[in-house]
Amino acid sequence: MQSNFEKLIGTPAEWLVNGEQSGDIVLSSRVRLARNLEGKKFTHSSTSKNLKEIRDAVKDAVLDTDYLKKALPIDMDDISESERMVLAERRLISQEMVMHYKDRSLVASEDEQLGVMINEEDHMRLYAIGAGLMLEDVGRILSSLDDQVSGRLNYAFSPRFGYLTACPTNVGTGMRVSSLLHLPGLVHNNDIRKVVDGMRHVRLSVRGTYGEGSEVIGNFFQISNSITLGLSEEETIRNMEGQIGKVVEFEKRARDKLIKEARTLLEDKVSRSLGILRSARLIDSKEAMKLLSDVRMGVGMGLISEVKMNVLNELLITIQPMHLQMTNLEVLDPEQRDIARADHLRSVLK
Amino acid sequence: MQSNFEKLIGTPAEWLVNGEQSGDIVLSSRVRLARNLEGKKFTHSSTSKNLKEIRDAVKDAVLDTDYLKKALPIDMDDISESERMVLAERRLISQEMVMHYKDRSLVASEDEQLGVMINEEDHMRLYAIGAGLMLEDVGRILSSLDDQVSGRLNYAFSPRFGYLTACPTNVGTGMRVSSLLHLPGLVHNNDIRKVVDGMRHVRLSVRGTYGEGSEVIGNFFQISNSITLGLSEEETIRNMEGQIGKVVEFEKRARDKLIKEARTLLEDKVSRSLGILRSARLIDSKEAMKLLSDVRMGVGMGLISEVKMNVLNELLITIQPMHLQMTNLEVLDPEQRDIARADHLRSVLK
Repeated sequence: MQSNFEKLIGTPAEWLVNGEQSGDIVLSSRVRLARNLEGKKFTHSSTSKNLKEIRDAVKDAVLDTDYLKKALPIDMDDISESERMVLAERRLISQEMVMHYKDRSLVASEDEQLGVMINEEDHMRLYAIGAGLMLEDVGRILSSLDDQVSGRLNYAFSPRFGYLTACPTNVGTGMRVSSLLHLPGLVHNNDIRKVVDGMRHVRLSVRGTYGEGSEVIGNFFQISNSITLGLSEEETIRNMEGQIGKVVEFEKRARDKLIKEARTLLEDKVSRSLGILRSARLIDSKEAMKLLSDVRMGVGMGLISEVKMNVLNELLITIQPMHLQMTNLEVLDPEQRDIARADHLRSVLK
Repeated sequence: MQSNFEKLIGTPAEWLVNGEQSGDIVLSSRVRLARNLEGKKFTHSSTSKNLKEIRDAVKDAVLDTDYLKKALPIDMDDISESERMVLAERRLISQEMVMHYKDRSLVASEDEQLGVMINEEDHMRLYAIGAGLMLEDVGRILSSLDDQVSGRLNYAFSPRFGYLTACPTNVGTGMRVSSLLHLPGLVHNNDIRKVVDGMRHVRLSVRGTYGEGSEVIGNFFQISNSITLGLSEEETIRNMEGQIGKVVEFEKRARDKLIKEARTLLEDKVSRSLGILRSARLIDSKEAMKLLSDVRMGVGMGLISEVKMNVLNELLITIQPMHLQMTNLEVLDPEQRDIARADHLRSVLK
């Protein structure tokens, strides 16, 4: 019988598959809520016994909701480190949870739209992800889930501060809103610096694909709110949606300008990038991301139609080291991984 | 009706088509003889009237031989400059003859194995070309042709110096022997400098594809004898054949070493180069030569089999500017030419 891990990994994430309809510039909208149980110590100061109690209580509560009753609970102590790394590559758990896995769990819907990390930094991190720019929809669903869970558990809450969280930056709504954007046009015309500075000015943070401190590769940017105090959930989401809408406009204008001024050069670049992805025998992750970025832009701009956007989106996940490792029995060294990555790309893109 | 020019251009050269059997390292063997008519001034000091008389006499004589009775005579004054450039790209006439075309002619066999340039630097430049390393065979055929022509015309000959030629470096046998070699292995392992120095030490000259002063592109080298005095025709040819045989050995060893030490890297490079040639929308001549060189090496080493050597050989000729221009009605600017080159490569290699 398939384990919950295998079931989860065997189904592509909804936000990657549906990426086609919802435009190519915003890959995903993600909202998460940090919640803790009343009268319990925060995760980092709890005993293993307490953590287990918390985990059981949270699992029972979330699996009892309408949204997650068919969800797949996975205890991090039951799976291997490389399996945890696969979950992190799919953005279902944090990097932190790969290393600190004892008494931690994930409960996620098979289509990866909804999930709860249990005993990460907070007792609960509830999250929802959708394809494209749809923070309001995603926020609404998550808010309903949160309501149902809160009917089953007592949250640590202060009338003065709001939800109490392990890290003070999350106190208040406990909400973080983020979107993953693909901005090759702005990188290409060198306006990205201005846009990033503008985001920071309105207190949004801009990072690489994998959160804090991660490098920007393949022109994928993660934009998120950096404060959770003083604004309501609705205001935070509306504000983000507006700001991201502006970035999308800038990116579109950059692409229009590019295509007007250098269509042939652009077609050449996009077509060569696809040609290399289809023929390389050895390719590292960074180069593959860069080339996929070119091809994604080409598809988004209508310059090529032979590849589907959702295929490219899924590749962003499946070319990662642990996903490549998964289908191999023996442990791959970096060169073998680069070969496996090239094999995977050729077979998917041919 | 097809003109002689069209007939000649419409048939691929035998030395390119047959390149498969004869190995991939030596592309061609070429021998040429410089001959002048007795009692006539050299080309550069002749009047137009005299040049026309010489041309008529030489044409009559060579078209009367067994070898060239079906050959195609083309008067350079009858064709356009771009048509002359096409002939030069096919190595049927010299660059010099593109510019100084008045009263000059070419008589060449349709398969481009034998030809006579008339009123170039010398009254006659007879040449023969074959695929692979076969200087002795090529020399034998050319010598028979020369015998037949000399039965019909009186050559300027001195018992002391041999054949008299316009340029003193050709006095003696009037013979130049050359081979076009593809040496990516030696370039790759940095031994090419040593090999070139070795060749120069035994008084062979090493140049790029298009003769004196031309740059080496795509690792194609032209090796030729630089002295014609003091050695018999047979000695010259035997000597060259021996020297080139040694270079071929060095190149083979370099390739063996490469494949032993870096097979995957090499496969990756070759496969990517083919991928780029198959996908570029814009490509300049230098880059195309470089990539074709990689793919040629890959085919020669058995790393890929999806492309035939003769297809690659023909591309070396047909991606040149005037060949690309030929199929277009309007004059191409450099960017349009790079587009036409990419289109041609994609359609031939797909």
